[in-house]
Amino acid sequence: MGNKIRIGIAGYGNLGRGVEASVAQNPDMELVGVFTRRDPATVSPAQPETQVFAWDTLAARTGDVDVMILCGGSASDLPQQSPELAGLFNIVDSFDTHANVPAHFAAVDAPALETKHTAVISTGWDPGMFSLNRLFGEAILPQGKTYTFWGRGVSQGHSDAIRRVPGVAAGVQYTLPAQPAIEAVRNGEQPELSTREKHTRECYVVLEEGADAAAVRETIVSMPNYFADYDTTVHFISAEELAEQHNSMPHGGFVMRSGDTGHGAVAQDGTAHRQVIEYGLTLADNPSFTASVLVAYARAAYRLAQAGNFGAKTVFDIAPGLLDIRFAGELRRELL
Amino acid sequence: MGNKIRIGIAGYGNLGRGVEASVAQNPDMELVGVFTRRDPATVSPAQPETQVFAWDTLAARTGDVDVMILCGGSASDLPQQSPELAGLFNIVDSFDTHANVPAHFAAVDAPALETKHTAVISTGWDPGMFSLNRLFGEAILPQGKTYTFWGRGVSQGHSDAIRRVPGVAAGVQYTLPAQPAIEAVRNGEQPELSTREKHTRECYVVLEEGADAAAVRETIVSMPNYFADYDTTVHFISAEELAEQHNSMPHGGFVMRSGDTGHGAVAQDGTAHRQVIEYGLTLADNPSFTASVLVAYARAAYRLAQAGNFGAKTVFDIAPGLLDIRFAGELRRELL
Repeated sequence: MGNKIRIGIAGYGNLGRGVEASVAQNPDMELVGVFTRRDPATVSPAQPETQVFAWDTLAARTGDVDVMILCGGSASDLPQQSPELAGLFNIVDSFDTHANVPAHFAAVDAPALETKHTAVISTGWDPGMFSLNRLFGEAILPQGKTYTFWGRGVSQGHSDAIRRVPGVAAGVQYTLPAQPAIEAVRNGEQPELSTREKHTRECYVVLEEGADAAAVRETIVSMPNYFADYDTTVHFISAEELAEQHNSMPHGGFVMRSGDTGHGAVAQDGTAHRQVIEYGLTLADNPSFTASVLVAYARAAYRLAQAGNFGAKTVFDIAPGLLDIRFAGELRRELL
Repeated sequence: MGNKIRIGIAGYGNLGRGVEASVAQNPDMELVGVFTRRDPATVSPAQPETQVFAWDTLAARTGDVDVMILCGGSASDLPQQSPELAGLFNIVDSFDTHANVPAHFAAVDAPALETKHTAVISTGWDPGMFSLNRLFGEAILPQGKTYTFWGRGVSQGHSDAIRRVPGVAAGVQYTLPAQPAIEAVRNGEQPELSTREKHTRECYVVLEEGADAAAVRETIVSMPNYFADYDTTVHFISAEELAEQHNSMPHGGFVMRSGDTGHGAVAQDGTAHRQVIEYGLTLADNPSFTASVLVAYARAAYRLAQAGNFGAKTVFDIAPGLLDIRFAGELRRELL
């Protein structure tokens, strides 16, 4: 092992803490530190030895960091930070506003190419590993249908929505994949599924004192965009139960591809050559899994930059072998 | 769409027929024909328009074929054919003797580099998609355990073994993944599993007239290497039932990675940050699915060769986007 890959973390919330922990699991990497927009003196890193730097020192540290992992949000942080930092460092981000990916790619690609940096955008699990599995499924089985199910997991946007309902003191929302829909796809049925048939929603709500439970429930289940198109269950619980039972961030889901190949035995029921591919994640902690994906792609970003392969990249552009600490000959011997 | 990718098929058994059908599903490809070691006049292709050529005309067709897909077996065909044909064409093979992959890679790499061809070896589903999922799992969750389960599916080697037992007229063997083992991994238990705990074996046997069923059963279940280390069930059936109920080639299995990330909520039972990744295949027809993977990698081989990226490659070396008919901008917009 030569020099370690020097990693920086830009933004220090749950995702940043996940990256900090993941870097410690990878012996070919070392953490330079965390860059924060807060006063560094007010930030207590999860690992005491982690150094904390002010955001405005970033531009002065370009020689000390091989890959900067951006841990801000997609709404306002990354659209500005990724293009800016791709002009200073090799970067990895988890930009997840699917509709804006092409614009984000272009905004990052130009400064990265100009300054000879490699910038991996929109990685994590969706976009990221789920995107890869949609791609593999559709490339291998061009005649078929792709399904993505999310959950069981906390949706921040839906949790925020229920907290805005009058009478609600606190609450959390879980998205659940609908088991009958998953079973139908697993059985090769290729169903057409409505929004209501794919996912259900479950809310755990703490009422304000004197609030009308029936009215709160009705407001939630009929809320347009968020709940009206789903079968939604509302459970009223105490603040203590919320704190004890709903303090983790599980998530996950499935990408499934059901397709037909042209040749082979025909099943008894006449369905021809039905082939089903399923990729599933069951995550005890969503941000730390996303962080682990970002760290593996940081290794790839470093290797691509070393090879002079600059510009914006997505998971589709990156040979999987670049993610692993082992080199090609070892991977062939141990994993193929 | 410019010119189509011109595909040749070297060897025409179940796998070759699967490739023939898969090429027809991919509008950017066309089939030049099938090359066979049999007398071409005796070969009836599944699609009447498919041309059949003699094997010894291969060397004369190097200008007509962009990628040759090798559909022979790993025991004796591919160790000889892949190095030979990689000196004439871009190739794809499904070499699946895991222990000999490094030697096969080296034997193919040299002629491919020397003649400026791209040679994708050892693709399909295992090795192939399962290998990729072992890699993704281990790169993302370096602290954890990897599990591969196969089945339910026909094992040719084990089917051959039961047919060699005295008193057996015909038979087929299915490998089944053990459900309790899979459930334990899904639940994040990271069990240590013995051979017997991972898979069971199910045999459907047609007896010769006058054969002693009890003796045949005992010979099968106690056969070293093949059955002695497994819980094996033997069903005696009629030749008619074998022909009607066991004439297809289903297969599949699971690759699972159970790992721990360092940061995040700790579960109520004290297990920390357990994350589970699962990739599963349920294949109605094993050879035609393998064929579909080979065809997607033929597209990648073509694109790598066009880019001057020659030599032997495995699934680990190939950016996933190269597999799909769509180009990078479309993939980002539609799938990321």
